[in-house]
Amino acid sequence: MPRYRMTVEYDGTPYVGWQRQDNGPSVQGAIEGAILSLTAETVSIRGAGRTDSGVHAMGQVMHADLTKEWKPYTLRNALNAHLRQASERVAILDIAEVDARFDARFSAIRRHYLYRIITRRAPLALEAGRAWWVAKDMDHEVMHAAAQTLVGRHDFTTFRSVHCQANSPVRTLDRLDVTRHGELIEIRATAQSFLHNQIRSFAGTLKLAGEGKWTPDDVRAALEARDRKACGPVAPPDGLYFMQVDYRDDGAPAMPLPDDESDDS
Amino acid sequence: MPRYRMTVEYDGTPYVGWQRQDNGPSVQGAIEGAILSLTAETVSIRGAGRTDSGVHAMGQVMHADLTKEWKPYTLRNALNAHLRQASERVAILDIAEVDARFDARFSAIRRHYLYRIITRRAPLALEAGRAWWVAKDMDHEVMHAAAQTLVGRHDFTTFRSVHCQANSPVRTLDRLDVTRHGELIEIRATAQSFLHNQIRSFAGTLKLAGEGKWTPDDVRAALEARDRKACGPVAPPDGLYFMQVDYRDDGAPAMPLPDDESDDS
Repeated sequence: MPRYRMTVEYDGTPYVGWQRQDNGPSVQGAIEGAILSLTAETVSIRGAGRTDSGVHAMGQVMHADLTKEWKPYTLRNALNAHLRQASERVAILDIAEVDARFDARFSAIRRHYLYRIITRRAPLALEAGRAWWVAKDMDHEVMHAAAQTLVGRHDFTTFRSVHCQANSPVRTLDRLDVTRHGELIEIRATAQSFLHNQIRSFAGTLKLAGEGKWTPDDVRAALEARDRKACGPVAPPDGLYFMQVDYRDDGAPAMPLPDDESDDS
Repeated sequence: MPRYRMTVEYDGTPYVGWQRQDNGPSVQGAIEGAILSLTAETVSIRGAGRTDSGVHAMGQVMHADLTKEWKPYTLRNALNAHLRQASERVAILDIAEVDARFDARFSAIRRHYLYRIITRRAPLALEAGRAWWVAKDMDHEVMHAAAQTLVGRHDFTTFRSVHCQANSPVRTLDRLDVTRHGELIEIRATAQSFLHNQIRSFAGTLKLAGEGKWTPDDVRAALEARDRKACGPVAPPDGLYFMQVDYRDDGAPAMPLPDDESDDS
């Protein structure tokens, strides 16, 4: 049974999140529905990250096992046609056939997220739902300095949702960079895996630093408190984008790794 | 009665266009509704361009006469609060009090539009409704060369909707540049005023050049034909953005000018 790795883009706004749930449409459900329409097969797909409701993706990765052998090009076009017909806000960017040991979630060695903040007095019209609107300007250099106190291997209990299901709150944050392009402030985060709400907890806390309410030392102290109550407000999902997943090499299999849980966003 | 100039951003998707119409919600209606909620005054506003349904704006300009004297800052925030409350996809970016001779439409000396095309195999998910999706790649350099045949003062009958209400098909096109950023092809157009569907007619015709179906000489021949039937297919509204309007100087009055009609997009 051939296994296919697919790279997926979606607008998270109309979905309850990546994962199938009883309370509304999910991205997973949209793709499984397209596969069912195309192949008459009921499959269960797995994504590299379980993004929350309202969180977007430009490069989510998933895998699916299909009975039939497909040309990746044909499969992608056919699934996209079914997704469009169902008016889903989901597109399959790329498909490759991979080794059966490849697992979109457990083979991932690095996940990349982007968090977008637009700082301006006027509310967002074109970017509504696509960025976090912050009416007052912020100092992105202070935000970047504060972010550097979080990089490395830490117990991130402070920045983890109380609903996080990961066994351990310890993660290694490879990168947390804050840059600015006019009104747009971008936070780019990279790690093997993230805890639930970790990046949105970072974004909400870094906003306090950008507004001058917290110093970078306050952010470090919040981390060291290992206490969820020490966290700043959690930023809304609107600004979060799952950008990219790295694997050992293109499509190569990998064994589960220590940081194998990914309750992202 | 003080006159206010307002710069407006909107997502054109849910609207029948800028102008009030019987068949659905308009951007003009949304703003007039916000003014009514705030001031209990029924005003009629005028925009620099009457964008069509689905066409977006980052810098539409309009003017309104209000009975009361407002601090521009207070007026902007109050109108935005009303627009948000009504779930409109419209935001007032900036307000200034201007001379009573200022007219958003007739005082404009230059209008700037952007047309966005995304060329990739996969349909658009995040950018659906925000760009024209073209599945096959195009040569943007050929598009740019073809565009240069259109710059200048011409009879643009070929590139004008049959519904265009302007008296004359003659316009002076100051700029029509085609650039590329990865999958994104941007067409930037500047003129004192445009004919109805002129930029979407340009975009659809330049696509033929980008695909290699037409040469730049074919585009010039289409212009010279002065025949609507010589035009390429009209591009969808999704990719069109009204970016900016220039006035003689900041808020200065101006008299009506020869090219005073603007049946844009």
